[in-house]
Amino acid sequence: MTAPLAITMGEPAGIGPDLLLRLFAERVERQLPVFAVYGHAGFLAARAKRLGLAIRIAEVLIDDAREVYADALPVVPIDGMVEDAPGQPGDKAASVVINAIARAVKDTMTGHCRAVVTAPIHKGALYHAGFRHPGHTEFLAELCAIDGHVKLPVMMLAHDDLRTVPLTIHVPIKDVPGLITRALIVETLRVMAHDLRQRFHIAAPRIAVAGLNPHAGEGGSIGREDVEIIGPAVADAVAEGIHAVGPLPGDTLFYPPHWRQYDAVLAMYHDQALIPIKTVAFDAGVNVTLGLPIVRTSPDHGTAFDLAGTGKGSPSSFAAAIAMADQMTAQRP
Amino acid sequence: MTAPLAITMGEPAGIGPDLLLRLFAERVERQLPVFAVYGHAGFLAARAKRLGLAIRIAEVLIDDAREVYADALPVVPIDGMVEDAPGQPGDKAASVVINAIARAVKDTMTGHCRAVVTAPIHKGALYHAGFRHPGHTEFLAELCAIDGHVKLPVMMLAHDDLRTVPLTIHVPIKDVPGLITRALIVETLRVMAHDLRQRFHIAAPRIAVAGLNPHAGEGGSIGREDVEIIGPAVADAVAEGIHAVGPLPGDTLFYPPHWRQYDAVLAMYHDQALIPIKTVAFDAGVNVTLGLPIVRTSPDHGTAFDLAGTGKGSPSSFAAAIAMADQMTAQRP
Repeated sequence: MTAPLAITMGEPAGIGPDLLLRLFAERVERQLPVFAVYGHAGFLAARAKRLGLAIRIAEVLIDDAREVYADALPVVPIDGMVEDAPGQPGDKAASVVINAIARAVKDTMTGHCRAVVTAPIHKGALYHAGFRHPGHTEFLAELCAIDGHVKLPVMMLAHDDLRTVPLTIHVPIKDVPGLITRALIVETLRVMAHDLRQRFHIAAPRIAVAGLNPHAGEGGSIGREDVEIIGPAVADAVAEGIHAVGPLPGDTLFYPPHWRQYDAVLAMYHDQALIPIKTVAFDAGVNVTLGLPIVRTSPDHGTAFDLAGTGKGSPSSFAAAIAMADQMTAQRP
Repeated sequence: MTAPLAITMGEPAGIGPDLLLRLFAERVERQLPVFAVYGHAGFLAARAKRLGLAIRIAEVLIDDAREVYADALPVVPIDGMVEDAPGQPGDKAASVVINAIARAVKDTMTGHCRAVVTAPIHKGALYHAGFRHPGHTEFLAELCAIDGHVKLPVMMLAHDDLRTVPLTIHVPIKDVPGLITRALIVETLRVMAHDLRQRFHIAAPRIAVAGLNPHAGEGGSIGREDVEIIGPAVADAVAEGIHAVGPLPGDTLFYPPHWRQYDAVLAMYHDQALIPIKTVAFDAGVNVTLGLPIVRTSPDHGTAFDLAGTGKGSPSSFAAAIAMADQMTAQRP
């Protein structure tokens, strides 16, 4: 028997709980793999009722999740108080939100779950509980530390065959050039090459590296970083046996016949990686964390407070995140 | 009789001449409007022969172009020497390339042509002839100066209903934040609003303004430019009666249901504007210059030296540039 997927409840005032409840209700027609939710059963029952979803909810030990799945949503209960107040984030539920993630990661590290799919969190609501990580991804990396060694987590956005990784993420554009180093590029390419093989089952992954400046700097005439940092980093990676090519102009790289020549693209900053995904993936992009000992995916949208509790909002990205976690951890023949 | 379109020959070692010759050969099935080429007739005849295109070429005065069009490609001759050497840019043809542009602009300013469609140039080949402009667009603006007053040329990339304008263009990313000023944004929005009305016949144009930083700066926590410069500039424009909205996060803005709410997007830098166009337009994007007294379009690709003279390379973008120039200057009922 394969282990279930772990889904973390995420921010209770957001749209995450709505979507996972709806996906559970549609689990048969969507052919979803067995999953358990880490969170608060009473809150999930209240939200389901608000949404008019006739769902039974069963508190379980993770190893019993599969057994109840046909009849009830298995919830691994996390102690604490959670109110059903859509669109009104507070800090009362912070410990439940945080501990749900920690518990899901632990159960996945120990093999009770196959992978973690995280619903969106709202950092502001977690500060009082001591959450000081730049984001979900960095928190996951810390939870996955082995003997105190934290690995470099690498965020990938994926939709079908288009996979992009932003080298720098939530930093101002003015700080981007200074954060681009030869060592960071090489280490990120190592993680990408490794996980494209191990997690995506691509035998000989080909990676395109986007330039920082327009036209990848036109040989140094539009900025120096492309020739002085990115080019040498790509050469280092190639010397290690990684099939990397670049720097390539960021715009023409995303012309579909170009990016289709590669299994993934390493972009230099947030919008360079996310614009192509949002442009082609509509609402079905997935956020995947590479570099960790476990598989973690998430929808690529946020808490969408304005839609929480209304029944509106598309579950496409969340469903794609579940499907991708499933594929990435399916037993291979 | 409507005046013909003027097509400039562009870099003779590049793919521009190939594409315009091929489009002329296919003018009937493609239903192209009458155009004349500004350039060197002997060179064009040699390139046509190399490509195996049975085309007659006729040197004409611009006002006679329509008359010969059914039988021959009308060429308004520009004095000078041009060799047929695909893929080998030199500087001998520089004066012909430059004077073709100048003459086409002059004939359009005086009403002998309706609009100018420019084939790609190679700046490196033009230096010895004194060409010192950052690009084609700035040269056009200078040629269009009236009484010494040069208008702000605004580069737009367009494909169907997706139209994007990069506020900054061929500058290093590290210089972008310093170049973003409230005055430049407001003036660019004025040009966009004006030309969307006048040239694209959109009665009440709606313009989205992309943020500079990830998530448009998240209220100032990821960089200050979005709240301190872009937001106030949008407010200034709104106060003038321009329907502008922003700053909006650059990634989610290009999710198609979002950008479709707007007639154009003002992006902050090159790749932010070009990635969405290249991603969706495949090879049919068009570069349009706004803000000038004449209409000018061009294909959104470069000289592609490796394809010149081979017969390969798609004429889609060039054909789209001709069609757009035609639509933008068609007589309105």
